[in-house]
Amino acid sequence: METRRPTNPVAEEILGLYFPVLDHGFVALVDYMGSDEDVERAARVSYGYGTRRTSETRGLIRYLRRHRHTTPSEMVELKFHCAMPIFVARQWVRHRMSSLNEYSGRYSLLPLLFYRPAPEHFQAQSATNRQGRAGAALTTVHGEAVERWERMRRGAAENYEWLVSHDVARELARIDLPLSTYTQWYWKIDLHNLFHFLAVRADPHAQYEIRAYARVVAGMLKRVAPLSFEAWVDYEHGGAHLSRAELGALRRLVAVSGGGLAARAGAQLGREELGALGLSKREIDELVAKVAAEPPADSFDLDLATARTGADFEREMAAAVPRIDRGT
Amino acid sequence: METRRPTNPVAEEILGLYFPVLDHGFVALVDYMGSDEDVERAARVSYGYGTRRTSETRGLIRYLRRHRHTTPSEMVELKFHCAMPIFVARQWVRHRMSSLNEYSGRYSLLPLLFYRPAPEHFQAQSATNRQGRAGAALTTVHGEAVERWERMRRGAAENYEWLVSHDVARELARIDLPLSTYTQWYWKIDLHNLFHFLAVRADPHAQYEIRAYARVVAGMLKRVAPLSFEAWVDYEHGGAHLSRAELGALRRLVAVSGGGLAARAGAQLGREELGALGLSKREIDELVAKVAAEPPADSFDLDLATARTGADFEREMAAAVPRIDRGT
Amino acid sequence: METRRPTNPVAEEILGLYFPVLDHGFVALVDYMGSDEDVERAARVSYGYGTRRTSETRGLIRYLRRHRHTTPSEMVELKFHCAMPIFVARQWVRHRMSSLNEYSGRYSLLPLLFYRPAPEHFQAQSATNRQGRAGAALTTVHGEAVERWERMRRGAAENYEWLVSHDVARELARIDLPLSTYTQWYWKIDLHNLFHFLAVRADPHAQYEIRAYARVVAGMLKRVAPLSFEAWVDYEHGGAHLSRAELGALRRLVAVSGGGLAARAGAQLGREELGALGLSKREIDELVAKVAAEPPADSFDLDLATARTGADFEREMAAAVPRIDRGT
Amino acid sequence: METRRPTNPVAEEILGLYFPVLDHGFVALVDYMGSDEDVERAARVSYGYGTRRTSETRGLIRYLRRHRHTTPSEMVELKFHCAMPIFVARQWVRHRMSSLNEYSGRYSLLPLLFYRPAPEHFQAQSATNRQGRAGAALTTVHGEAVERWERMRRGAAENYEWLVSHDVARELARIDLPLSTYTQWYWKIDLHNLFHFLAVRADPHAQYEIRAYARVVAGMLKRVAPLSFEAWVDYEHGGAHLSRAELGALRRLVAVSGGGLAARAGAQLGREELGALGLSKREIDELVAKVAAEPPADSFDLDLATARTGADFEREMAAAVPRIDRGT
Repeated sequence: METRRPTNPVAEEILGLYFPVLDHGFVALVDYMGSDEDVERAARVSYGYGTRRTSETRGLIRYLRRHRHTTPSEMVELKFHCAMPIFVARQWVRHRMSSLNEYSGRYSLLPLLFYRPAPEHFQAQSATNRQGRAGAALTTVHGEAVERWERMRRGAAENYEWLVSHDVARELARIDLPLSTYTQWYWKIDLHNLFHFLAVRADPHAQYEIRAYARVVAGMLKRVAPLSFEAWVDYEHGGAHLSRAELGALRRLVAVSGGGLAARAGAQLGREELGALGLSKREIDELVAKVAAEPPADSFDLDLATARTGADFEREMAAAVPRIDRGT
Repeated sequence: METRRPTNPVAEEILGLYFPVLDHGFVALVDYMGSDEDVERAARVSYGYGTRRTSETRGLIRYLRRHRHTTPSEMVELKFHCAMPIFVARQWVRHRMSSLNEYSGRYSLLPLLFYRPAPEHFQAQSATNRQGRAGAALTTVHGEAVERWERMRRGAAENYEWLVSHDVARELARIDLPLSTYTQWYWKIDLHNLFHFLAVRADPHAQYEIRAYARVVAGMLKRVAPLSFEAWVDYEHGGAHLSRAELGALRRLVAVSGGGLAARAGAQLGREELGALGLSKREIDELVAKVAAEPPADSFDLDLATARTGADFEREMAAAVPRIDRGT
Repeated sequence: METRRPTNPVAEEILGLYFPVLDHGFVALVDYMGSDEDVERAARVSYGYGTRRTSETRGLIRYLRRHRHTTPSEMVELKFHCAMPIFVARQWVRHRMSSLNEYSGRYSLLPLLFYRPAPEHFQAQSATNRQGRAGAALTTVHGEAVERWERMRRGAAENYEWLVSHDVARELARIDLPLSTYTQWYWKIDLHNLFHFLAVRADPHAQYEIRAYARVVAGMLKRVAPLSFEAWVDYEHGGAHLSRAELGALRRLVAVSGGGLAARAGAQLGREELGALGLSKREIDELVAKVAAEPPADSFDLDLATARTGADFEREMAAAVPRIDRGT
Repeated sequence: METRRPTNPVAEEILGLYFPVLDHGFVALVDYMGSDEDVERAARVSYGYGTRRTSETRGLIRYLRRHRHTTPSEMVELKFHCAMPIFVARQWVRHRMSSLNEYSGRYSLLPLLFYRPAPEHFQAQSATNRQGRAGAALTTVHGEAVERWERMRRGAAENYEWLVSHDVARELARIDLPLSTYTQWYWKIDLHNLFHFLAVRADPHAQYEIRAYARVVAGMLKRVAPLSFEAWVDYEHGGAHLSRAELGALRRLVAVSGGGLAARAGAQLGREELGALGLSKREIDELVAKVAAEPPADSFDLDLATARTGADFEREMAAAVPRIDRGT
């Protein structure tokens, strides 16, 4: 259709494409408002009439991001259609500065689709990151786990159908469905808050399953506002925060020299010296990790070949809804 | 302890008392900031130095509520500790203008406590309110439902323990726990947003289970800010909104007379005439219901005799956490 | 340009048109996301696969509005470019659930344009609505007021130019500009929050100057989401809220009869009887006013003939920026 | 008074003390909810029953701050009474995640108090930070500026009194008061959002006048939640963010060695080499500044000797309200 609104051909290309995530989930970009140019325009209104306008879009956007002038990026908005297991939805919903409309299990019968972790993501409790998983896949355990899951889910589905077929209210029938059951929603969020979502959910400390969604969302954002995305990767995602004590340590190793920087000859800070500067053991590990880390390699590009149609997913979902004779 | 902060003896009385809700849940008021006097003080700052201050607290608070001047009620804050089934938590969390910290199933082992609906709340899908339940209790179905639930929950608990004992990450082990599993959180919200929570969740259209929580929360709010609560009951909870067409209908039945109101002699509006005024069938039913309805009778008073201690609930929760030999 | 996004021809027609408000202000619709169909689509996701879909868009949207299911209307977003006096901006900015980027008086030189109230809006302090104005225009006072304003503004402009020409920081030079000075911003808000803005700012109790803006914004919203707008007018703007006591009074005057309503023969409620039902004097006046009031007559339609171009306003603004020799 | 709520003696000590800011402004801590222990308690609920609790409050709070787990700090709330010039209020109000009630110039007569910058803060437009001021005080200009301000304010005050005495609505009479006029409000905000306020407003790039307020607010926060404040200073206020390119530069100068860090012998990065790593000129300057900068020296401690009483300020404000014969 024709429009006089700002449009973005690279974003248009993926509008309405459904990208699969996990075994039955998806993310689709449904609509967008604005692009990098609109971030710039919003920022420019601050700069007004009495000033020269020399910087170009990219420079300005990088400047804004570097200095945490985030309000102009609230001017870009993205809308998604997503399906995910309920335990993922429970993490997602905590991002309050967004709008969402979820499938209602009170009003409607739920599709009985459940998430089954693939063997390669089936890992042990992490010893270091005490809330996540780590290490080699627990392949032998996985086999029995799958059997247990299948049994549990068959039972849950059968109970749900039995309750609904006995006319029990749907809001009650659903209460023993497992957290692995898929739900879906429309989700609308602005660029500023979406970057915050990615900072938390594309982070290696996030649970793998929501990270898989964050990765696809990032690929979509990259098409809507590529310069903002690049700036985010350069200044936030690929950067690191140094504390006052870490900066102090750095100053003992590096000096300003001729307008640039130089390593201080022979300067060394062992763990004890770092401790004396006020860093705890854990902070020393974190500092060393920041210095040692490779920059993130993921380009976040979407693979368009994997995309399916919305109708395709809708068919799969609809087929998983129990058919009840009562004829709702 | 001594404080120079505004305090409220009627609220102090319930501080730290744990009120049971459903079979294993609770709500406790942990802290509060301000009271009716603080709503008044915040409103008074608007009225400034050039004006007389004649109205008293009650009159002012009722005026504010009646005219939807809600910002002064943001000046009162309440903090709760609550435990509820996950399907209730999923409705609760949609109230975005609040703060919460929930028990983490990624970090910690979950207490295996599940909500079992009592027979009297086990009802059929409502035909009129298409998302709720209605009618007589389905007592014969309830018996078998309980058996099915028990079987399902034993299985879910056993699987959870098996997975955790095989060192599977907790964030994975939990994914087949049912939505009836209890969780808990700290929740902080201001008075304005809490009234909105009550408007939605103490409403007869809300699911019974969250209504049970809203009722207790209302009883606590009533102790923190009794005049604001009374005004809310009088102007919102016990009131009703009339549309433009409904007001038009009303004007045909009632006239202004001598500074008061009088019924127009012989005036009648049958369903057809109401339809001609622009009301749909459903709206006519709703209008008739508004005229026919009795004012709400619930006083929302708390029964202090039901309160338990936090330690008591903590013991119950801790006892329901699986004991795993790995020694976490 | 071509787009696969949902578009709305009636909204497209005014995209980028600048509608004058007050003497130097404007509102322009810069972009929009979604329309009534997107409100419907978001609501439909709740209704899911297990249900028939019989209602049409209009019926559904009216149902949602009537029952305060407001989250689907968060799915529509509007972006505006606006210029207004600072005292209007100070009221506007209190609508927190929106995004804005304002012209910066720290970074840029300000256009020296000031708002001068027209004689017909130059009224006395209202005796009833104790924060507004009322009564006949104070035409004789207006003449001298204009002279005083002009003198004051010439002085303020001259001082600003003098300070800036002596290289005083702009953030300081501006501090004695009057509250009538125009500023401008980009403003983005969703439909739900925009209705709340209108409820407060298109209300007769709002200050005339911000009401003038609300009126134009309403006309734009009406083009983006006409069915939602109609429902808002019917159920909220043109409706009224009755308190518990007012409903009680109503029940004494009107009875349910044959599925419809009928006036109770001879029923009358004088001011004393209304007082006995718990209504204060002020509430009785308010109730009588609700019954007596005519429904609002404003169609909120925009007059496209008044629209100007953005370039036109930009020229006017730029011409009002002081030209300083320092050459910033 | 007695309370069972968590209290904090160091915060109690300043409750209700009015700390002067600028020439007629103030900040007073009116109430607070919670302290460091409540941040800890909220975080602990996530850690649940299946885990040991070994870390102490300070360690946990530092861990949370370091890893940006900010939701527990939303559990602490502070309420302030503040008076500030309108141009400061306009920056302040942009912090949306807070509640405020402001003195109403529509309802009440305004105290005619204006902010006059002291000579030492009267500086030129900054050449580097293009929105602020810098350099030596413009003392010779200051003298004439004061004269101009005084003249302007006398005129504005006289006009305001004249308009009000002719019964012009207050909402109109005020529109030519200057942005330097003082206003006041109650302000309530949680710890998380208050830290964000400080990050933006206690920053050297913020306008001096709002920084003066941020400094006092910081001193109050330090008394309410000292460990959280210390962590904020160490990890955020006194730290710095390094971009991906800056980290890359750092890695060329510093190596991991024996579990600690060591300067790489002879490593040097001149401006050209830094440019080759992707840093713009401006970014190179910023990186050098980060390495060269001294840690912030301000302790943010309040000087209790400067505090005045609320009654004292109220008297000053009330005395500045025009006395109008009409007798409102």
